[in-house]
Amino acid sequence: MKTSDEFNLVELPSHAPANFHKTATLRQMKSIKQELIALQDRLYAENTRSILVVLQGMDASGKDGLIRRVFSGLNPQGVRIHSFKEPTELELSHDFLWRVHQQVPPKGMIHVFNRSHYEDVLVTRVSGQVTTEEARRRFVAINNFEKLLQQAGTTILKFYLHVSEKEQQQRLQERITDPEKQWKYEAGDENKAKQWPEYRAVYEDVFEYCNPSSCPWQIIPADQNWYKAYAVANALRDTLAKLDPQYPHSKEERPKAKAMR
Amino acid sequence: MKTSDEFNLVELPSHAPANFHKTATLRQMKSIKQELIALQDRLYAENTRSILVVLQGMDASGKDGLIRRVFSGLNPQGVRIHSFKEPTELELSHDFLWRVHQQVPPKGMIHVFNRSHYEDVLVTRVSGQVTTEEARRRFVAINNFEKLLQQAGTTILKFYLHVSEKEQQQRLQERITDPEKQWKYEAGDENKAKQWPEYRAVYEDVFEYCNPSSCPWQIIPADQNWYKAYAVANALRDTLAKLDPQYPHSKEERPKAKAMR
Repeated sequence: MKTSDEFNLVELPSHAPANFHKTATLRQMKSIKQELIALQDRLYAENTRSILVVLQGMDASGKDGLIRRVFSGLNPQGVRIHSFKEPTELELSHDFLWRVHQQVPPKGMIHVFNRSHYEDVLVTRVSGQVTTEEARRRFVAINNFEKLLQQAGTTILKFYLHVSEKEQQQRLQERITDPEKQWKYEAGDENKAKQWPEYRAVYEDVFEYCNPSSCPWQIIPADQNWYKAYAVANALRDTLAKLDPQYPHSKEERPKAKAMR
Repeated sequence: MKTSDEFNLVELPSHAPANFHKTATLRQMKSIKQELIALQDRLYAENTRSILVVLQGMDASGKDGLIRRVFSGLNPQGVRIHSFKEPTELELSHDFLWRVHQQVPPKGMIHVFNRSHYEDVLVTRVSGQVTTEEARRRFVAINNFEKLLQQAGTTILKFYLHVSEKEQQQRLQERITDPEKQWKYEAGDENKAKQWPEYRAVYEDVFEYCNPSSCPWQIIPADQNWYKAYAVANALRDTLAKLDPQYPHSKEERPKAKAMR
């Protein structure tokens, strides 16, 4: 199924770098959060640019927890999380980007995709719904779609939460044995762990074909929740700092910002 | 224009009750936030009921700040803020509830309306776009719409942020003089303060005709931001505690919760 040999996920670290320690990182996280809150306020007020965060990762890679850790505390008026579930009949009766396009961020906003358009070249390929040829066509469509958004003023951050096969197995097991995690259990969780190698193969294709230097993937070591959240928050902070959004500060500027909405 | 004499906003307090003090209230707010975070997590996991918070108030009554104070810190995956702006041409080519219905909360979610369907019987009446007769028809339509949502498992909380005429004038003035608030200034802000009596009249009609005991308005004294946020957070906490959502705790319960989605 896999058509590329460029990427090898197994060789990429799923653990935090050795020089990172939990207590110090959590402390740093606190100060990054404060910066994020201030920067987001300016992005929202400026109202000319937007940010799209795409979160992908295998089952139990901790996407939900990451969203809570990184985005709670920000002004909820400027942040929207969109979780893509199995497509409905109506959604399936359109092209695969139709439902996704409706959820992209307008100016001033940060939108987070918990799973995304990439599911349509991942789960569909593992299940055999989509051929390699169709997948190749979709890779091109995705690249064009992301370019369209970027040209309209959206900065896209794509994160792959990388958990090892072993860590994933352990987390799926906890959904059965840990009373506080049981509600996350779904029929079929037992089989998911066995599919790690298959998902690895289709992800490696994504990293090969949908990874232009203008819109790259960031592979985040995700076996430890504290490091994962830090890494994503840090990347988001750097991006926002580079955008350096400004409060509109004169009457002349304000109508312009409004008109660009 | 006003058709009822039941409600008199001027007689209702816009200031915190005398026994509330800022420091103690802010401390209490912290503990309410912790309760809210825990209760929201259960609402989301349970996935069978939802909450709609409707926020109304005159210009500069502090809706944006309230949203930040009450809802930041909650898991953003379970909270969505929807700000209703002036309707677009497409929206205007439908009935006035069309665009609103699309944004009501699905099971498990808390949605917050920053302005709402009530604008269509408020600003439209002050501007003279809507006659008293049409307003009366809309009041009935709103009551029926809210009943529909309640019957589908949505708890509706309607808050009116009550600022005095004097406080509103002062806040609008600050948008001109305070550098940090200038970006909120809009052409026409000067006239808004003069419209306080007209808005008062149409709001009083809303409190008369769209205020069934099954879906009442809560008039929140809003001249002080710390009290206003406390009062809304407290009411939301009480509502959630009464709903008492539960984590699905057996395998048999889980599929049922999923199927009701």
